Amino acid sequence: MQRYFETELLDVKNFELPKEIYKHAIVVMRAKVGDHFELVTADQKVHLMEVTAITKTAATAKEIEVFEQLTELPVETTIVCGLSKGDKAEFIVQKGTELGADHFVFFKGEYSVAKWDDKKQKKKLARLEKIALAAAEQSHRTTIPTVAYLSSLQELTLAADEKGLIAYEEAAKEGEKGALVTLLKEIKVAPKETKRPKLQAIFGPEGGLAFQEVTALEERGYIRAGLGPRIMRAETAPLYLLSSLSFALELR
Amino acid sequence: MQRYFETELLDVKNFELPKEIYKHAIVVMRAKVGDHFELVTADQKVHLMEVTAITKTAATAKEIEVFEQLTELPVETTIVCGLSKGDKAEFIVQKGTELGADHFVFFKGEYSVAKWDDKKQKKKLARLEKIALAAAEQSHRTTIPTVAYLSSLQELTLAADEKGLIAYEEAAKEGEKGALVTLLKEIKVAPKETKRPKLQAIFGPEGGLAFQEVTALEERGYIRAGLGPRIMRAETAPLYLLSSLSFALELR
Repeated sequence: MQRYFETELLDVKNFELPKEIYKHAIVVMRAKVGDHFELVTADQKVHLMEVTAITKTAATAKEIEVFEQLTELPVETTIVCGLSKGDKAEFIVQKGTELGADHFVFFKGEYSVAKWDDKKQKKKLARLEKIALAAAEQSHRTTIPTVAYLSSLQELTLAADEKGLIAYEEAAKEGEKGALVTLLKEIKVAPKETKRPKLQAIFGPEGGLAFQEVTALEERGYIRAGLGPRIMRAETAPLYLLSSLSFALELR
Repeated sequence: MQRYFETELLDVKNFELPKEIYKHAIVVMRAKVGDHFELVTADQKVHLMEVTAITKTAATAKEIEVFEQLTELPVETTIVCGLSKGDKAEFIVQKGTELGADHFVFFKGEYSVAKWDDKKQKKKLARLEKIALAAAEQSHRTTIPTVAYLSSLQELTLAADEKGLIAYEEAAKEGEKGALVTLLKEIKVAPKETKRPKLQAIFGPEGGLAFQEVTALEERGYIRAGLGPRIMRAETAPLYLLSSLSFALELR
């Protein structure tokens, strides 16, 4: 079923479809009166809606049912990626959203070839936010991931209740294979708070992370983790991590 | 370091670079005499080579060292995917190779919109094989995944020593979350044979698998498995599975 995000659902009996939703549901998907769609509100509730009236410029719907759905990863995950060339950022946001990431942060790494100046930054972020929204709707998430830009890794810090991981190719080469498993075990056995535990995972750009970048992060509490024995491209490693989080924390 | 595949390394002291390797290593990457590259032979051994002479049309190299490297998944994995539109097959082969898949099989599913006629099939497979080779070199694999086409799911069978899994969206919706974990536990505790255990994992096209396709597979021993609570695109689900295999079997 088609799903849309809408911060507020003011009138459950006579909900007027916002322009964007009207355009997609009525014009593109050709929904008719009586057809259903889902609306996710800011409180992460899922409202099953039925189209009640359609005109050439507007449509209304009413709520049939409201329910809660657990489609969010049990750990609030921030994917931090060095800027790479081409449309890799778009790829990471789309696939990473399907795989459950909560936040994306892109940064200009020591070895980044690409860079986003102020003007480009704004445009890029707007585009990435659109991709995150579409992927969140498609993958039936109940939140929309955020996207941000950081001009330097030095601005990055860990909150007191946050764990930090560096996907460092050299760690994998040295045969490091315990850090991620240990970290997920800690998260799994931690007492269940009302708030989800937090995880930040840092990935280099295509050229990788510089040694100084890694050691500076380590000084701030991030730990190196190997992600298996194969060399993954910059845009593949975040997907490995997110899939592993789901496998370890959502399956049983 | 640049890595190439070559079935045979006849003369370790005076290895003449095949045309393709010459073109890439010498012309594209501008390797000079004294530079190194890796050559993987059919026995999965990795040979560290040093360029010894270069002319305008040919080059030679000698072996400096030979070693074995464990970059293959501990389970021989076949990724079976319904045909989807666009370049999704290329995406699956590239990323799936980085993540360790051994074989790719594409099939025309009940709900596949795309199809490959005989002529297209040959061209597509040749292109996908090239992508698998490049990705295997890049990700430092020691084998090149195979790619095949199947005109119907009915031709698909499980070998006696092979496990089969169906990534079925409906299973995930019903909250199925034990099958994959159980399967990997079985693989993990199985006595270590000289041959790797085998796994076949089936993924629907964009439109999903038809119910009859799933039941027919189940009759032949495949089991349904949920891959977490989010809806993944057709090309994302295989990456989730491969990442989970690595996490469960290669990390500790």
